[in-house]
Amino acid sequence: MKKLINTAESVVEDALNGMAAAHPSLRIRDHVVYRAQGPRRGKVGLVSGGGSGHEPLHVGFVGHGMLDAACAGEIFTSPVPDPIIEATLGVDGGAGVLHIVKNYTGDVLNFEMAAELVEGVEVASVLVDDDVAVQDSLYTAGRRGTGATLFVEKIAGALAEEGAPLARVAAVAQEVDERSRSFGIALTSCTTPSAGKPTFDLPETEVELGIGIHGEPGRARVPLAPARELAEVAMEAVHRDQPLRGDLLVMVNGMGGTPLMELYVVFAEVAAFIKGKGARVTRSLVGNYVTSLDMQGFSVSVCLLDDALTRLWDAPVETPALRWGR
Amino acid sequence: MKKLINTAESVVEDALNGMAAAHPSLRIRDHVVYRAQGPRRGKVGLVSGGGSGHEPLHVGFVGHGMLDAACAGEIFTSPVPDPIIEATLGVDGGAGVLHIVKNYTGDVLNFEMAAELVEGVEVASVLVDDDVAVQDSLYTAGRRGTGATLFVEKIAGALAEEGAPLARVAAVAQEVDERSRSFGIALTSCTTPSAGKPTFDLPETEVELGIGIHGEPGRARVPLAPARELAEVAMEAVHRDQPLRGDLLVMVNGMGGTPLMELYVVFAEVAAFIKGKGARVTRSLVGNYVTSLDMQGFSVSVCLLDDALTRLWDAPVETPALRWGR
Repeated sequence: MKKLINTAESVVEDALNGMAAAHPSLRIRDHVVYRAQGPRRGKVGLVSGGGSGHEPLHVGFVGHGMLDAACAGEIFTSPVPDPIIEATLGVDGGAGVLHIVKNYTGDVLNFEMAAELVEGVEVASVLVDDDVAVQDSLYTAGRRGTGATLFVEKIAGALAEEGAPLARVAAVAQEVDERSRSFGIALTSCTTPSAGKPTFDLPETEVELGIGIHGEPGRARVPLAPARELAEVAMEAVHRDQPLRGDLLVMVNGMGGTPLMELYVVFAEVAAFIKGKGARVTRSLVGNYVTSLDMQGFSVSVCLLDDALTRLWDAPVETPALRWGR
Repeated sequence: MKKLINTAESVVEDALNGMAAAHPSLRIRDHVVYRAQGPRRGKVGLVSGGGSGHEPLHVGFVGHGMLDAACAGEIFTSPVPDPIIEATLGVDGGAGVLHIVKNYTGDVLNFEMAAELVEGVEVASVLVDDDVAVQDSLYTAGRRGTGATLFVEKIAGALAEEGAPLARVAAVAQEVDERSRSFGIALTSCTTPSAGKPTFDLPETEVELGIGIHGEPGRARVPLAPARELAEVAMEAVHRDQPLRGDLLVMVNGMGGTPLMELYVVFAEVAAFIKGKGARVTRSLVGNYVTSLDMQGFSVSVCLLDDALTRLWDAPVETPALRWGR
């Protein structure tokens, strides 16, 4: 295993120290990343988190217009309730806190427990479960939460920034999840620092369709094919589950070890597929956003937009990994 | 070889089609990426380019506050003069055009020839040669141009946007190059689509110090070491060439296949090294910006800032890969 780390045990801590050094806009304490300036009175607080190894998700999405705090667990391991409680208390501005939780059993349990235990703060939760590949999985009852988590965090974050009440922020988060679908394909396994060897074996001639972001098995293994065919497999799965129509927010996301050039090759095919179905890509992201350590491969996520969601997507955002002005 | 491509022959074209589909702010013709709205009267035009495989450099840096056009050669192959001439004519707003050229023999020759052949446009050139690892190299007389290219494009782009004349824009580009130093370390080789196998063999237990962005040999191979030691090797090389002092712009850049988490681990060590020398990181970038296909590894680039350069770095930029508001 070749990785830029000091030790397998310290990798999360070391990476968070790097984030703190690079981003004065953040304050990091006990594996929780906060906005440096603290909560804003009257604004709903947004807290997310989960196992590390998916960066920039979630820690890179803390900042104006997106999250107020992100809890970083160990690699592929949910944070326990304590830091989630700390984060919830730390971002509360008196208007309540929304927990954005990817649908993995550990995350669901720990966020639920934190929400029950926290005192004096109104908490709402939204569960992200956009991955159409499999119904249940190694760590999941129901569908897994993957790329749409970014959509939910961005759009709910924009509405919270405008001062909307907790119920409305939770409702838009729920709506974005319901309008979003994802599907991933792995070319290689990831390697966790502690294991030191690939999580699974994938022959040099095969890809895994419907991969999870922790290397959980997907639907099937098939021979490596041109990007066009792989993009079609992913988009057919998305389209079959929720027909493509109207204006779409589309993300072609790298799994961590895939260079940008290849993601643009995939994006071209995804865009052609969408055009073929009579829908339109009106907003897009291409890059490594919801990753799985050093895995090579991609996922595609699609959200059905309307004018209100488009406006919230376009609203200013100022985080380490997602940043645009008005 | 596992890559998300259709064919090795079409990969550059296919990726550019993806960029065109994802970014309505761009217009792409004959492997040249332009700003969609065309040249602005009286503004100096900035043209860069080079072999593909280093994305987002240069094509992802076209937009307000940075480049006006980028010429995309085939993988690791300089564009020929014709597209450079086309780009130069296409971005001219009557105030002349600056060519930003990384110091590789092919790029230097082709940009020089284009500058000689183009008619009716005043052209100035700046050569970027920030890589302290080796004096001459496989494709270079003198030092190689690597990470500082991004600094030059951003800072010169900001000055051009303000309406500064060609001589001043060229001078600041030159100044940024002179104030910048870089050093890269590879954990793995890259694999070009046409070769289909790694460019060089690097044992599982070794890293290459001073790697070039095309996989050119560096200074030495040494055993894989903790991130702290690798960061120190890189920073010692930078510091020995140009002592760290005052305010610094620091980029920890991934070579394409390295996940963000590992880059932050490196950044923490780089920041600690700089602090130990009594200098300050006042601006930073962490991510995959100047890449070498799927290579795993990192480079670090440091630019000595002053107030004027800091102001230009902070100026708004609106490109696919670098984007911030006021």
